[in-house]
Amino acid sequence: MPNLRVPGPTPLPLEVRAAQAQDMINHRGPEFAALITDVTSGLKEFYQTAHDVLILTASGTGGLEAAIVNTLSPGDRVLAVSIGAFGNRFAEIAVAYGAAVDKLEFTWGEPADPAIVAERLRTGGPYVAVLLTHNETSTGITNDLEALCEVVRAASGAPQLLVDAISSLGAIDLPTDRWGCDVVVTGSQKAWMVPPGLTMASVSPKAWEASRRARMPRFYFDFGMAKRSLDKKQTPFTPAVSLLYALKAGLDLLRAEGLAGAVARHRRVGERCRAGIKGLGLELFARESHASNTVTAARVPPGVEGGALRKALRERHGVVVAGGQGPIADQVFRIGHLGYVSDADIDDVLAALAQTLERDGATWRIAMSRQPTPAR
Amino acid sequence: MPNLRVPGPTPLPLEVRAAQAQDMINHRGPEFAALITDVTSGLKEFYQTAHDVLILTASGTGGLEAAIVNTLSPGDRVLAVSIGAFGNRFAEIAVAYGAAVDKLEFTWGEPADPAIVAERLRTGGPYVAVLLTHNETSTGITNDLEALCEVVRAASGAPQLLVDAISSLGAIDLPTDRWGCDVVVTGSQKAWMVPPGLTMASVSPKAWEASRRARMPRFYFDFGMAKRSLDKKQTPFTPAVSLLYALKAGLDLLRAEGLAGAVARHRRVGERCRAGIKGLGLELFARESHASNTVTAARVPPGVEGGALRKALRERHGVVVAGGQGPIADQVFRIGHLGYVSDADIDDVLAALAQTLERDGATWRIAMSRQPTPAR
Repeated sequence: MPNLRVPGPTPLPLEVRAAQAQDMINHRGPEFAALITDVTSGLKEFYQTAHDVLILTASGTGGLEAAIVNTLSPGDRVLAVSIGAFGNRFAEIAVAYGAAVDKLEFTWGEPADPAIVAERLRTGGPYVAVLLTHNETSTGITNDLEALCEVVRAASGAPQLLVDAISSLGAIDLPTDRWGCDVVVTGSQKAWMVPPGLTMASVSPKAWEASRRARMPRFYFDFGMAKRSLDKKQTPFTPAVSLLYALKAGLDLLRAEGLAGAVARHRRVGERCRAGIKGLGLELFARESHASNTVTAARVPPGVEGGALRKALRERHGVVVAGGQGPIADQVFRIGHLGYVSDADIDDVLAALAQTLERDGATWRIAMSRQPTPAR
Repeated sequence: MPNLRVPGPTPLPLEVRAAQAQDMINHRGPEFAALITDVTSGLKEFYQTAHDVLILTASGTGGLEAAIVNTLSPGDRVLAVSIGAFGNRFAEIAVAYGAAVDKLEFTWGEPADPAIVAERLRTGGPYVAVLLTHNETSTGITNDLEALCEVVRAASGAPQLLVDAISSLGAIDLPTDRWGCDVVVTGSQKAWMVPPGLTMASVSPKAWEASRRARMPRFYFDFGMAKRSLDKKQTPFTPAVSLLYALKAGLDLLRAEGLAGAVARHRRVGERCRAGIKGLGLELFARESHASNTVTAARVPPGVEGGALRKALRERHGVVVAGGQGPIADQVFRIGHLGYVSDADIDDVLAALAQTLERDGATWRIAMSRQPTPAR
């Protein structure tokens, strides 16, 4: 079995795999009502919210689109704070639906600076909404979301706080209500240890109010329809039932560990990964003060080609890591350590790296394969 | 194990359940490339198309939304031909995105009359697109799609032909290219014997051309992004990997049976269901000349309440059927016979109905439960 260490989809615990193998049920029947009630309540616990959490059948990007179209109207002024590929994507969705997007970009590998965001809110505002990334999967940075939320909440115009927490929620602390987040989006294939295909979104009372005014076109991703169905313990459209089985199994494991336990585990494996990378003489891409505990981007060392490194790790050691994205596609490789992950998984990656890379002065090379020559 | 006889999700073959239990893979890696290539090619066979078929992570309704937003601009004149709840939904999506929708409704339980559609195309046109339902799940009618396509193709303005085939494709013959359909949408939880969560859409060259002009906002459902990723054997956003495993297993079974075999099986179980319903003295809701071979709507007999009937079937016999929708919610119950279905499944439903319902002159009643009195 390969050691799947991309930043989602994560490997699946056996309990989740077994849950997925169950036969179908009527999505308008009593078993489904019990299922959606249980997983919604479990999610609220990890969201740390007393408000609504909706589950939509889509990738995380669908959840980001839902956050936009339910709270905004064409022409609305939006501040998109981007520190990488997924911040850019969030902004692109808002542009696609006709928002007037003001983009504030920070250097890849750096966090968003709350003081600079505050300044832009003062000079560029008022904004109807601010788009924030909690954990930027492309660079391995966790923003200081608490400080960012604080400056947004203090801004004139009371902008909606729309948060991409796809690769953080359940693994990195995010008290949704306490930080005043209006819509927080996550995805099943990350901390939840579930296959991809479900996206979840919390909706604050303020976001509900915005949704009543919002005129961006929507149907499939309409929060109102989802909520009216949820009140009947259903979904408006046939949901991904087997993924909901998986989500229940994943949440059962997470509930047994507890939020604090899950956060501590991710902190531990994150630190272990970064220490190990540095110990090998490799360089971290992201500023370490804001290094993510769910994904680490390491620089491909000089002299080595990223694709060849990933191939060698995969083919010789069964370790599957991800490449870079966008402008840093060839500069980094990324190690996922979220969801179903233990210390041993990280040690396995580090051992594979140690056996794959050889230093030769200032440059590096991929070690000769030590596979035995096939017998004649 | 209950006999799940709603018109989707359908029960799952053991092969599909086992496939779902597999662990995750990198959705940007070589295993995924092989998987998406195989299922796309399998789908094309059942679509009977030489053009593109795209797989999106969403319910079938998301596929209908994709059909609309990729081919139309706000203000475009659209003829929506509706014979029930899902025809109405297709029209609503177009309205939500700002199309100028002209709705042509037929009585629930009747098919769309091609002559009346032709007349409307002449007097009301030209239209940019026509929305058609192949199989209306709410009423159990299969439209004469071939004749409808013919009148649309003959209409002025060369309207796009957008087809909801969610509950037909793979079970009822639909030669996409031969009938000139531009976008045909289906859903994983129907004929494909797969859990819900994937929707598929064929895209004709004419639909691709329309997509280049279409100005409805779109991001998550953008066909162009999906196609550019598919050309790299990927998807633009993390797809529902476990459902793709399931789709491969379902397609393997369908390929072994062959399209003609699957269509013949659905015809046989459809006829068996209708004959059995009539044999019990119950009435079919839909006009029999156009009765669907994937779902049968039967009238709830006089004197009986639909919810009580479904409950008795479920609790006494483990037979799960669906209620009605919209204006006929209380008038009918619906028996799904698509996907993983055999003669024996239908016989089981009919036997349960025979034991549950008692005729008393002109009215009916639910038979006393013959469950043994619990021992003291």
